[in-house]
Amino acid sequence: MKTSFFYSMMLLPVLLSAQQNLVKYVRPIIGTQKMGHTYPGATVPFGAVQLSPETDTISYEKNGKYNGDVYQYCSGYKYDDKTITGFSHTHFSGTGHSDLGDFLIMPTLGKLQLNPGTASNPKSGYRSAFLHQNETAEAGYYKVRLDDDNILAEMTATTRVGFHQYTFPKSDQSHIIFDLMSGIYNYPEKNVWTYVRVINDTLVTGYRQTNGWARTRTVYFAMSFSKPFKQYGQKNYDAKQSYRGFWGKFDQSKNFPEIAGKQIRMYFDFDTDANEKIRIKFALSPVSQDNALENMKTEIPGWDFEKVKQQAQSDWNKELNKIVIDASEDDKVNFYSSMYHTFINPTTYTDVNGQYKGLDQNIHKAEGFINYTTFSLWDTYRALHPFFNIIQPKRNNDMVKSMLAHYDQSTLKMLPIWSHHANDNWCMSGYHSVSVVADAIVKGVYDGDAEAALKACIETSNHRSYDGIGDYIDKGFIPAEKNGISVSNTLEYAYDDWCIAQIAKKLGHADIYSEYVKRSHNWKNNYDASTGFMRARLGNGSFAPNPDVMSTHDQGFIEGNSWNYSFFVPQDPESLMLKMGGKQQFGKKLDTLFTMHLPDSFFADTEDITREGIIGGYVHGNEPAHHVAYLYNWSDEPWKAQAQIRKILKMQYKNAPDGLGGNDDCGQMSAWYIFSSLGFYPVAPGSDEYSIGSPAVKSAVLTLENGKTFTLEAINQSDKNVYVKKVLLNGKAVTDFKIRHSDITNGGKLVFYMDSKPMKK
Amino acid sequence: MKTSFFYSMMLLPVLLSAQQNLVKYVRPIIGTQKMGHTYPGATVPFGAVQLSPETDTISYEKNGKYNGDVYQYCSGYKYDDKTITGFSHTHFSGTGHSDLGDFLIMPTLGKLQLNPGTASNPKSGYRSAFLHQNETAEAGYYKVRLDDDNILAEMTATTRVGFHQYTFPKSDQSHIIFDLMSGIYNYPEKNVWTYVRVINDTLVTGYRQTNGWARTRTVYFAMSFSKPFKQYGQKNYDAKQSYRGFWGKFDQSKNFPEIAGKQIRMYFDFDTDANEKIRIKFALSPVSQDNALENMKTEIPGWDFEKVKQQAQSDWNKELNKIVIDASEDDKVNFYSSMYHTFINPTTYTDVNGQYKGLDQNIHKAEGFINYTTFSLWDTYRALHPFFNIIQPKRNNDMVKSMLAHYDQSTLKMLPIWSHHANDNWCMSGYHSVSVVADAIVKGVYDGDAEAALKACIETSNHRSYDGIGDYIDKGFIPAEKNGISVSNTLEYAYDDWCIAQIAKKLGHADIYSEYVKRSHNWKNNYDASTGFMRARLGNGSFAPNPDVMSTHDQGFIEGNSWNYSFFVPQDPESLMLKMGGKQQFGKKLDTLFTMHLPDSFFADTEDITREGIIGGYVHGNEPAHHVAYLYNWSDEPWKAQAQIRKILKMQYKNAPDGLGGNDDCGQMSAWYIFSSLGFYPVAPGSDEYSIGSPAVKSAVLTLENGKTFTLEAINQSDKNVYVKKVLLNGKAVTDFKIRHSDITNGGKLVFYMDSKPMKK
Repeated sequence: MKTSFFYSMMLLPVLLSAQQNLVKYVRPIIGTQKMGHTYPGATVPFGAVQLSPETDTISYEKNGKYNGDVYQYCSGYKYDDKTITGFSHTHFSGTGHSDLGDFLIMPTLGKLQLNPGTASNPKSGYRSAFLHQNETAEAGYYKVRLDDDNILAEMTATTRVGFHQYTFPKSDQSHIIFDLMSGIYNYPEKNVWTYVRVINDTLVTGYRQTNGWARTRTVYFAMSFSKPFKQYGQKNYDAKQSYRGFWGKFDQSKNFPEIAGKQIRMYFDFDTDANEKIRIKFALSPVSQDNALENMKTEIPGWDFEKVKQQAQSDWNKELNKIVIDASEDDKVNFYSSMYHTFINPTTYTDVNGQYKGLDQNIHKAEGFINYTTFSLWDTYRALHPFFNIIQPKRNNDMVKSMLAHYDQSTLKMLPIWSHHANDNWCMSGYHSVSVVADAIVKGVYDGDAEAALKACIETSNHRSYDGIGDYIDKGFIPAEKNGISVSNTLEYAYDDWCIAQIAKKLGHADIYSEYVKRSHNWKNNYDASTGFMRARLGNGSFAPNPDVMSTHDQGFIEGNSWNYSFFVPQDPESLMLKMGGKQQFGKKLDTLFTMHLPDSFFADTEDITREGIIGGYVHGNEPAHHVAYLYNWSDEPWKAQAQIRKILKMQYKNAPDGLGGNDDCGQMSAWYIFSSLGFYPVAPGSDEYSIGSPAVKSAVLTLENGKTFTLEAINQSDKNVYVKKVLLNGKAVTDFKIRHSDITNGGKLVFYMDSKPMKK
Repeated sequence: MKTSFFYSMMLLPVLLSAQQNLVKYVRPIIGTQKMGHTYPGATVPFGAVQLSPETDTISYEKNGKYNGDVYQYCSGYKYDDKTITGFSHTHFSGTGHSDLGDFLIMPTLGKLQLNPGTASNPKSGYRSAFLHQNETAEAGYYKVRLDDDNILAEMTATTRVGFHQYTFPKSDQSHIIFDLMSGIYNYPEKNVWTYVRVINDTLVTGYRQTNGWARTRTVYFAMSFSKPFKQYGQKNYDAKQSYRGFWGKFDQSKNFPEIAGKQIRMYFDFDTDANEKIRIKFALSPVSQDNALENMKTEIPGWDFEKVKQQAQSDWNKELNKIVIDASEDDKVNFYSSMYHTFINPTTYTDVNGQYKGLDQNIHKAEGFINYTTFSLWDTYRALHPFFNIIQPKRNNDMVKSMLAHYDQSTLKMLPIWSHHANDNWCMSGYHSVSVVADAIVKGVYDGDAEAALKACIETSNHRSYDGIGDYIDKGFIPAEKNGISVSNTLEYAYDDWCIAQIAKKLGHADIYSEYVKRSHNWKNNYDASTGFMRARLGNGSFAPNPDVMSTHDQGFIEGNSWNYSFFVPQDPESLMLKMGGKQQFGKKLDTLFTMHLPDSFFADTEDITREGIIGGYVHGNEPAHHVAYLYNWSDEPWKAQAQIRKILKMQYKNAPDGLGGNDDCGQMSAWYIFSSLGFYPVAPGSDEYSIGSPAVKSAVLTLENGKTFTLEAINQSDKNVYVKKVLLNGKAVTDFKIRHSDITNGGKLVFYMDSKPMKK
């Protein structure tokens, strides 16, 4: 890696000079409506700060009831909403569960209002109406006019610092509201503690501690104002606050600089001239107030908003230029917006001095790597991390190191399942970090201790007390009466075990290889030959009664039904095809999947998707299906794969706020788009093979970190010409519809000859 | 200081060889009954760990009511109680408010019970009955038999580590209960967060965060067992716990090593043979789990309980030998138990690596000093810190440095009022840290930057928004309608300002000196010549209506009435005497104070004292009176001072659990005993003078850190011979009933000639 990085450094000037303006194709607003769950705010590639508007969030009412729909507000922003409550500094991109939303800031005028008010009665609080026509969302920059007080809000960011710029009207009652109660997936119990120090009339530091999806989480901050506030104050909304005793010696509600409590809202008052800009630099740290200050001073020493914005956008442009495509304007928007979404997560979780908080809640120093967090692995092992192994190998190498650091700090001695901010919420099925580790090792991206990595994978896969693993090891399946998602788990463990086998093979451990290859066959234990579907089994070995292949509930699956999961054998489609009755039967079954009619009950019961998110019974909005279209290559009907893939690309990704057919899931949906529109896809991460589909671009030039270039060309490309007549790799015909990772990293040219007629055998 | 310390180092072997066994006179049980509020457990001089039994504490019942009397349980232990709930690691000694009680450990047998049960129904929980006849409380060592399960509990400590030793019967159901919910002054809202990692089958680390008297407080721990536990588990009692989602993938109730929540109780199970000892090393840190581990490994590397106990007791003996007295056995017990109590607080708040948490919640390194906490300054400025300036100057120097570090970290830019564990609870009146700083500077004990110290004192005294200071500066008094303790504050601010003047004088700042001498006269503004008493004034300057010199409520005083406070002009008794009508009137007024009858209502209304705690209207149990007996030296009736002082020594300090007539207040009551029984007292800390009373010892040898020796002798001493006929300092007669600090530190001899008849003029 070192040499290749050295090359890319040398080539940097060349690249930059050669750079096109691709940022203009990025539309962060895509996915902010319906199920996309993306956010429109400002962030830089893999940034720790996601400074974005919030339109509402679950919040607490005096009557003790929660209001707001937590699920709709995973990213804090819902396109259909008419009001903005403020701008906070941490957001997930495209998740199906929520957290974060730290440190909400809102500029207001006139009478001080410390509560956000409700969407139904916006004037009752500090929130403001806004119109999308007054809203601009770009990579690294967000702008909106807040209509209630006619304040222009602009924001940009560096990796660890959010930069706010508010243009006020003339007023002697200009306020900056600083709401430390507000949060995403919020409720009083979530706020564990808040601490604030007003060090002087422009500098404030402190921290916020929450108990949410991340169980034990603290974010430290340092906030600097471009202009001294004339006064400030706070209100503690926690009625049950403990001992207050002699605090009465101060009036703590106003200009009192040492603030702490569970439910704190603050305000800072200013006099403003017409069009006066008040800027705020807001730095985060997982470690300490001191580190937050250091992050701020290092990343944004001055007050030049334009300069920071331009740097953020040039950082984005540099990343986007790693793939330069020729395609329709709309496809370019979808392509580069997808790239944008893939480069948001995982997020940096290291301070500029290299310190970070570990899973063990101790402070660690990341030696020789950047520590990352926000690993939505059930989603991202499929295409996002494989994509990084092509276009972001150095970062993916660090991400694997971050997972192994997590393992080292884990008293459970497990690799992450779904980790964020020094916690693991163990969300979803499988132990897919082993897939990411295997893919990085097999593809030569990981430059750390591979033996130690293998050990971590093995230990994780043998954690008997975790989610049925004990039974899985003993019986080769998980009894349905013991585990609600017994089939999903077995299928995914089997794939993950195959990944471990690939590492063992690479490292020459024949015994481990054969043990884990054996485990990788366990999917067969849940295959019911009598129905031709995956099916839950009971402890006594018999299949569970009353199978319902349409139902997504109580059948042993998660986020899908048996139709969605029965094709989940990415490590061995050949055997699955044979089990299902051979190529012809297999192809027919796939045909049925893509053409069947789903009952309404399916949409009522299934999370994360919309009607637009499906094609027949194929549910692109949930990840288990992502490799399925490519399985036609195993029924020897590649033309069907090509047609379906182009259909999915058109139907599921649109240049519109509701353009995503399901949660973007931290970039997985977008990574699928990039691979598929380039004409190939990693059906089984952990192998070095990609399966060929149908490119949607006319051409693409991939500039790799090793300095080499991989070029794609689709001759006779058009919306009608979705079929691949032939494929040439460096002039040689590709007959097995596969290319290898080395084919890409060695550089070269892949040419597709497109046609309107399928190339049936 | 350096040279003197160098001398003392050289002399150390000599001292040690000359040491008597004085530990045997220490009875930690004194003060554990009634109002003393001391604890009987194990600690070392100025130790960070106070490992002590708890007999009950305020706790939460299902019906939402608190039970237990919080005030009675300031130290966690009440002598009259019949059951022990467990042994926790942090306790205040003699306070009138409570907090702490961290990490309660209790050994039990048989059926697992995770709740403490109630005193009325002890069998309903893990608590156990005990008898005082089976209890041993020594300096640095505590032992008790727990009768319910016949378990012998023993404990000792080092500065930062508590060492438990439990002798179990034979059982396959032996438990160590680890209650992280329990705490002193406890209620659900107090527990902010708890985090525990079970690293292996003998090592556990984590932290506990509370919001109590200390608003934002975290204590980290490392716990090591001498024998591996066979299993462990936990219960989270917080019904409102946030997101639990995928945690169900584990059974977190048993053998799950990553635990967090607000209300956690744990247990560790063992098989034990008859009389098998299970030992626990429990280290604390204000900074991190890693530091707690380092503290443990550094201070107690092995498992030899006896050795650690012997070291703790020899550390105590070394401190006690700094004053060797000849007196009756009972007086020796009172004297050395007093010395023991004075050397408990303030407590060490620095890890072995020098790190500590600052008031700013940042981690700091104490460069060249030990950082201390637990500053009960309203009490301890009077005699405890002056006592340290004689017998513990090096430590008192570090204590002043700790206060100035507190100031540097304070966003309020104030010296501590009542600080503990990186917080200030601002308890009681005045800003008496300036007295401690002044006394240390005037007496040449403080070796830091005196100019910076003066600046800190001045800034603190000018914090207009604090407790009436603004009005005090503008008007010279505090309007009663604005401040509930306006008179106490004015009197104490005036004294504190005189202390600041003394620093200014020493540093040659004539202007500051005269400004603060002027402020020190403000006590006169609350003196009502018409009544001859201190009296509250209204904003318009008139005295408040309906004065009641007997009432301790709504008269502008705290913990006392006008009788108690009207003599509070320690900085200028001469002027007070003149104001009160001259020597004769002044003497008569003092006579009345010591002979008057207090109505029952006084005892109902007044905190912290018992009927035994008073002599007439003189309330020794509360600090404002502590200098008053010595004021007879200003009415030219020293013999009355002598008689009263001997009476107080006899009445207020007894060799019995209820031997203290009021809260020991972190050693202030005990420091009064030591001074007075040696025959002199610092009426006005900040001056280098001591006022002579009547010694209770036959002789005393003070070994100073500078290597010099100061010897006291009371010739013809007896219980009847309480009157001082003459006093010779190094052979020269002392006629003004005063000695100076240098008279002591230069070494020498003070001889009292005692007589049964008063030496009237």
